[in-house]
Amino acid sequence: MSAFAELMAFQRETEALALIAGRLEWDQETVMPPGAAQQRGEESAALAGVIHARRTDPRIGDWLAAAEAPDAAGQRALELIARAHRRNGCIPARLAAEIARVTSLAQGIWAAARAADDVARFLPTLRNVVALKREAGQALAAGGFGADAYDALIDEYEPGMTAARLAAMFGRMRPRLVALREAVLGAERRPKPLEGLFPKEAQLAFARELADAFGYDWARGRLDLAVHPFSSGQGEDVRITTRVVETEPFNCFYSTIHEVGHACYEQGIDAAHRLTPLGQGVSMGVHESQSRIYENQLGRSRAFTGWMWGRMRDIFGPLRAADAAAFWGTVNRVHSGFIRTEADEVHYNLHVMLRFDLERELIGGGLEVEDLEAAWNDRFHRDFGVVVDRPANGMLQDVHWSVGAIGYFPTYSLGNVYAGCLHRALRADLPELDASLAQGDARPATAWLREKVQRTGGLYDPAATIARACGFAPTEEPLLDYLEAKFGEIYGLS
Amino acid sequence: MSAFAELMAFQRETEALALIAGRLEWDQETVMPPGAAQQRGEESAALAGVIHARRTDPRIGDWLAAAEAPDAAGQRALELIARAHRRNGCIPARLAAEIARVTSLAQGIWAAARAADDVARFLPTLRNVVALKREAGQALAAGGFGADAYDALIDEYEPGMTAARLAAMFGRMRPRLVALREAVLGAERRPKPLEGLFPKEAQLAFARELADAFGYDWARGRLDLAVHPFSSGQGEDVRITTRVVETEPFNCFYSTIHEVGHACYEQGIDAAHRLTPLGQGVSMGVHESQSRIYENQLGRSRAFTGWMWGRMRDIFGPLRAADAAAFWGTVNRVHSGFIRTEADEVHYNLHVMLRFDLERELIGGGLEVEDLEAAWNDRFHRDFGVVVDRPANGMLQDVHWSVGAIGYFPTYSLGNVYAGCLHRALRADLPELDASLAQGDARPATAWLREKVQRTGGLYDPAATIARACGFAPTEEPLLDYLEAKFGEIYGLS
Repeated sequence: MSAFAELMAFQRETEALALIAGRLEWDQETVMPPGAAQQRGEESAALAGVIHARRTDPRIGDWLAAAEAPDAAGQRALELIARAHRRNGCIPARLAAEIARVTSLAQGIWAAARAADDVARFLPTLRNVVALKREAGQALAAGGFGADAYDALIDEYEPGMTAARLAAMFGRMRPRLVALREAVLGAERRPKPLEGLFPKEAQLAFARELADAFGYDWARGRLDLAVHPFSSGQGEDVRITTRVVETEPFNCFYSTIHEVGHACYEQGIDAAHRLTPLGQGVSMGVHESQSRIYENQLGRSRAFTGWMWGRMRDIFGPLRAADAAAFWGTVNRVHSGFIRTEADEVHYNLHVMLRFDLERELIGGGLEVEDLEAAWNDRFHRDFGVVVDRPANGMLQDVHWSVGAIGYFPTYSLGNVYAGCLHRALRADLPELDASLAQGDARPATAWLREKVQRTGGLYDPAATIARACGFAPTEEPLLDYLEAKFGEIYGLS
Repeated sequence: MSAFAELMAFQRETEALALIAGRLEWDQETVMPPGAAQQRGEESAALAGVIHARRTDPRIGDWLAAAEAPDAAGQRALELIARAHRRNGCIPARLAAEIARVTSLAQGIWAAARAADDVARFLPTLRNVVALKREAGQALAAGGFGADAYDALIDEYEPGMTAARLAAMFGRMRPRLVALREAVLGAERRPKPLEGLFPKEAQLAFARELADAFGYDWARGRLDLAVHPFSSGQGEDVRITTRVVETEPFNCFYSTIHEVGHACYEQGIDAAHRLTPLGQGVSMGVHESQSRIYENQLGRSRAFTGWMWGRMRDIFGPLRAADAAAFWGTVNRVHSGFIRTEADEVHYNLHVMLRFDLERELIGGGLEVEDLEAAWNDRFHRDFGVVVDRPANGMLQDVHWSVGAIGYFPTYSLGNVYAGCLHRALRADLPELDASLAQGDARPATAWLREKVQRTGGLYDPAATIARACGFAPTEEPLLDYLEAKFGEIYGLS
């Protein structure tokens, strides 16, 4: 066997083991008996140890030195393996083990602190996490993965992206978002919130209908309940989850559409890439672009919500909204709120910018963990005009920092920006799309996204993936134009 | 770390990985999307490779040579690890790989042959499997694991058992079983079969009630549907499955009770043994003793079926059986039939004896694979008085031989024999048990079995495990006495 073939066979088994780890996590969040947590912890740790040992196997360096790729996809696979190998090589084993140990405990400590609204209980742990991730980022930056520690952390989730470019982009977005927010909140027109009780089984049945509407492939997936919805898996087995609150059906419906977006990306990757480094979404930003365009630009569009309005009346009886146009407003109602995951499209990126600036300073050393709560609350008041009432609604609301996912937040906004670009190109290519959406059929959009974005998986860099699909280099303008037009119409601005 | 501690830590991770492999199988049989089979095959193969490499790791020999156990449980763990290590050492890597390759393909070939009723399609594969298992058995026998190849194969499922002892036991059982069968089939009294339609959701709800009745711990388990019911897992996560046929509710109910028996064994093992070689049922025979005593001696008892009769009338409406006594007969109705898994308690062991004699001859060389179908059909006609109508009702009915599980069948009858012994001792210790069973409460029996059998896991050899529980060395007599008494009463013999 050639060095290339040996390396790819080894990598293929490692990818398969990583899929098993994902399956175990799915099991834990959906069907695992409540008493199995400790045993499962040992199982997951044993498998993680096996995968880590394979990813740091010294033979990878030898194979890489000798391997010759037979084609462009093979060359890209070698590059991705080499990149991961170099990243792993930057982090001393002692540091990797310490990060794994601290972050695995930190999630539980964070959850307890959030439940008790007790920042002090979380601070020592967060101090550890930040120090370790800073050390890792510095080691990676020294190895060439970014200009500084924070860049190197971002690069893990969005290869090639930098804090400077993100900061510049956010700088251009902020004034238009703030102006839009002010205009909307000052508008006389006020869409009504939804009211009523929406039974669980009926919500789940409609969630399945929504997944159908977007072309989710049930032969390679399934839908289950989870406390925090997620999608999971690759290729032949990509599962989605949702949650049900009987007074808030949009929670279930838009979580489902969001996860269907992630899942359609994974299901849409060419089968030839399966179990290779190209067989999964290329970055978190591109992944989020798929979930966001499904959820927002398509799922919250006037045409699609018009169909939903009819179906929901069929299923649940009369709704508060007087007609389809009013229902579109209800779905897109703008409301100030503390929680990022519940934010509307106008507020969402402001939540991300706050986190981006704070975590950049934490890693850069300009902000101490002790001062984070005050910094968060000051900034929130300035950006949202509201005083944070308790830590669970402030700096304790997100899991990310506890698990060491620093540099992750900006990929959410990058996903929104990419979704804006894709939506502009999609609408130009499919001028009749609204007629389909109005019939509850978003599959033409999925077909376009599959052909333009999803099928290449990890073949091209993130920005190149979007640029190839759109025919232009991604910028924030299409997103902002879309938001201003949509919310201008809903709120009667002009 | 001492050699003992290092070995036990290594073993613990291997046990955890083996539990993950079991979880994947559960997933495959219950919730996996239909289109995921090929990818799952690669995942399972990758994990099997990792586990195999650990089980044949050369460091195990070094650790065993240097290890000193701190206590009796540790000593037993060392013995079990050493035993597995010596067994693995007997099988050349080439042979182990070939068995894995052939048997993984053979199951699909067998299933297709059975569906097509085409013995010829299965024979080349079966010839391969038999030759490979014979070679493995001979290598194991040469290594001291039994007097001949078949003994060595039995020893894998029931350590210490031999074909000669089984043959002697079956020789003592056969005349009494045949006489009982003749008497029952010649009796004038004929219990009526159940008739009617029993809705799926109601069957599943009552299956959960049955699991409760036996003390299954839902905090460490769950119930799902599967084509072929099984139980799966150890310690904190022991799941059961059942199936539903709306015209045959006993299929669902007694599959459930049977799997609850297996699951209560695994749930009942002392927590201190978890993730050690002592943390699972000690042999297939002892495992089957638990599933059988739950299903038959307890679940099909007059007292327990009396409670079931009332509950089933509550749930499903009037039944055909006139009263609880008639219903007991319906549950225990004796009927000639081709299929082992559908056999009543009188016929069951005759099905096993047929397979035991045939597979013993196959491995010993006295019977060629080409002649197996004729031998099966001759023997079936002699033992059951019926001509096999098609191979799916004859030699193609069981999966075992295709997956290389030769030497496995006799453990079913051994389980019945052990269950007979345990039942005698249990009834002596719990004279009031029927009063509980008549209230639908079998938990006192589970408590006795947990204390006497289940909790020690792999601490004692199989026969010793049963002897310690009963206070006497296991024999077939209690089982035969029980069958003659029970079916004598139901069929009015004497």
